[in-house]
Amino acid sequence: MSNKITQVMSHVRPINESAAAETLELLNHKSKPPGSLGHLERLACRLAAISGSSPPPRLAKTIIVMGADHGIADEGVSAYPSAVTGQMVANFVAGGAAINVLARQANATLFVVDMGARQESVASGVLDRRVAAGTQNFLHGPAMTVAQAEQAIISGINVAQALIDDGVNLVGLGEMGIGNTTSAAALCSAILKLPAVQVTGRGTGIDDAKLSHKISVIDQAVALHSQAMTTPLQTLACLGGFEIAGLVGVCLAAAASRVPILLDGFITSAAALVAVQMCPLVREHLVASHISVELGHKAIFKELQLEPLFDLNLRLGEGSGAALAMPFLDASVAIVHEMATFASAGVSES
Amino acid sequence: MSNKITQVMSHVRPINESAAAETLELLNHKSKPPGSLGHLERLACRLAAISGSSPPPRLAKTIIVMGADHGIADEGVSAYPSAVTGQMVANFVAGGAAINVLARQANATLFVVDMGARQESVASGVLDRRVAAGTQNFLHGPAMTVAQAEQAIISGINVAQALIDDGVNLVGLGEMGIGNTTSAAALCSAILKLPAVQVTGRGTGIDDAKLSHKISVIDQAVALHSQAMTTPLQTLACLGGFEIAGLVGVCLAAAASRVPILLDGFITSAAALVAVQMCPLVREHLVASHISVELGHKAIFKELQLEPLFDLNLRLGEGSGAALAMPFLDASVAIVHEMATFASAGVSES
Repeated sequence: MSNKITQVMSHVRPINESAAAETLELLNHKSKPPGSLGHLERLACRLAAISGSSPPPRLAKTIIVMGADHGIADEGVSAYPSAVTGQMVANFVAGGAAINVLARQANATLFVVDMGARQESVASGVLDRRVAAGTQNFLHGPAMTVAQAEQAIISGINVAQALIDDGVNLVGLGEMGIGNTTSAAALCSAILKLPAVQVTGRGTGIDDAKLSHKISVIDQAVALHSQAMTTPLQTLACLGGFEIAGLVGVCLAAAASRVPILLDGFITSAAALVAVQMCPLVREHLVASHISVELGHKAIFKELQLEPLFDLNLRLGEGSGAALAMPFLDASVAIVHEMATFASAGVSES
Repeated sequence: MSNKITQVMSHVRPINESAAAETLELLNHKSKPPGSLGHLERLACRLAAISGSSPPPRLAKTIIVMGADHGIADEGVSAYPSAVTGQMVANFVAGGAAINVLARQANATLFVVDMGARQESVASGVLDRRVAAGTQNFLHGPAMTVAQAEQAIISGINVAQALIDDGVNLVGLGEMGIGNTTSAAALCSAILKLPAVQVTGRGTGIDDAKLSHKISVIDQAVALHSQAMTTPLQTLACLGGFEIAGLVGVCLAAAASRVPILLDGFITSAAALVAVQMCPLVREHLVASHISVELGHKAIFKELQLEPLFDLNLRLGEGSGAALAMPFLDASVAIVHEMATFASAGVSES
């Protein structure tokens, strides 16, 4: 594997459980019944553990949205044509997509990276890290070469490191790519050793016939590549996408810098799953936002021992669920910083 | 019943389903797969229907926190002494409580009303609408007179109307009152005709023995007042609290002005339940935030046909869950106002 990737992985350390315990102690003195803010308190402790400091730091939030196209889309597994990937990347930089609205609401910056849409964006504001004009159709061969997978991972590492160097301390993951629920489901099926029917959903909204075809395509593809997938990197190369590989790099770099990684839906979670296969300690740095409608999301959460903060029946991607979760994270940190204690507020304890 | 209350109730109208349909139509043209933002889209439609305008208006948000003490606390049903109610009211105006932090995070104003704490607050910033220094112990007689219940409801109406006249168009409900989960559970048991064991929880955190005692107290009280509780107002007078009655008034006034009412946990939902018993059309103006740990909350939601937006295992009250839900409401409105359509963004449809 590339030295750069190996080096970043070597910097990922276990999270700091004593910082979590210190934050819990702070919370237990706040003027409220102990534990009465439920998962919000658990979240504050987790952010303390990941960052390694108590109280956990105020959050400087970004969402990294990576877009790319998928050769597997040629099999008719999506409700939309591949052209939409590039069009939506342009929409992201123009500010009109859901993730633009939700990132603004969450007071998060948005960082748009073209990892390899078929149609190259002419809009300014897109970071060009194109590996190729979409992956190959993985029903007939690997989606990409191992060298391409490494290139995409390294681009993700560099993007995340630059943002973290600029002061970002919470990274939300987002993606866009027609066909990428098929890629994510294939990765999920291969890594978790589950049949496609257990991890495949309707993506952007396909009907029963297309769903059944999508499941069959995934089962065939996983069988086709079964001999070749002896390492997580090879699995990623066989079945992944350039945006998924880029997000693997983002996960590795964020974890190496003790920066919490806020997942979005199924595709970003599949990227995190690959990152954890490559470097198991990445798992501790993940924070779940929502559970999506996509069937395989639950299987990934089970494997990664994550629990979602909410379920709004989302199935959009782009980082939308990550953005919607950010106010919970901000609130959990604010509670630790701002609440009075029983003593300072002059309130009797139980 | 007081003319004032009757008059306000007469102004409550059905919500405007055609405004909801118009907002859905707007959403269906936005640059995302139709319905892919799930409950967020449903929420936008609901806010349109309640306000009667499409797109739903941007939200000017307030949280009304009403505090009062409960005679039933003398039965040892809480983990905290009654003195905490007044102390926490002081904490609210000093800015150190959880609801202060969460309201700030949500960009909501906070309005603190003393409806009848045992200990009168000397802090400035508390609106004094004290009915009495706490209710009577409803294990031995009615918690309050019908006249007191009406007085509290009218105070709630006036508080809400003044805020709405000042431009508030979303009202979050909050409460503080040692013993008030006992009152809420008793109301819930009486109105829904469920035994106390099915609607009673641990409140601020009582142990098994106290919980068993609390359940027994509630069953006895509901039996004691069964003959007297022939109207919702009488039920409220027998088993309620001044803060709960005040919140009933807030619900009535907000609904009469087409202002969405954002519930918090079990106690505010019990107040809404009473308001709906008095004026069934109030139900359509309610928006659920979270489902709390308190057992009876689910039973109320079932009766009111409400579904929570999230479950963070909260059991604090104060309006904390309402404040945490506000970013979802803001986001749902922002999506309708700000997102590009497929056409305007130049994105291909499916």
